[in-house]
Amino acid sequence: MIGVVATIKCKDGTAADFEAAAKQLVEAVNANEPGCLFYRLFKTDVPNTYRFLEAYKDKEATEAHRASDHFKTMGRAMGAFMDGAPSVERLPGVE
Amino acid sequence: MIGVVATIKCKDGTAADFEAAAKQLVEAVNANEPGCLFYRLFKTDVPNTYRFLEAYKDKEATEAHRASDHFKTMGRAMGAFMDGAPSVERLPGVE
Repeated sequence: MIGVVATIKCKDGTAADFEAAAKQLVEAVNANEPGCLFYRLFKTDVPNTYRFLEAYKDKEATEAHRASDHFKTMGRAMGAFMDGAPSVERLPGVE
Repeated sequence: MIGVVATIKCKDGTAADFEAAAKQLVEAVNANEPGCLFYRLFKTDVPNTYRFLEAYKDKEATEAHRASDHFKTMGRAMGAFMDGAPSVERLPGVE
């Protein structure tokens, strides 16, 4: 298993738009990626700052995620509201 | 939904023991907590340092987790190998 913690800041005033775009991505990932075991969005206690908690069955599943149409289109839509690049931490599972 | 990211350092030389104890806890949580939606252990790139990624249906589910017999007994067993208290971050879900 591979865990991912992705922290994303959105631009001031775009939180509602960011959340709406991110929710579409969360739905699409959970509906279409059998190798993705968990993919949800959370708020942090830092203003405008969110965190995706993600888990994938294996490396192939992380590649399928990044290569998917929904990630490309909805990730781009979400990206319009982001303040800089996400900070992404990859964690090997203990199994 | 409530997300939890719990970072735990184990004492030098106890990684195998810590992992064995933590794996028992992961199994028990996933087998016995219907309100827990995700609970897995991952390694970080910091030596001896691990991260639990967790998600619960609601506040009641987090309380049921902490009050469970398995958390009390297996958490204590795991605690014997820990180097200090865990650092726990609670994240409200965006739904």
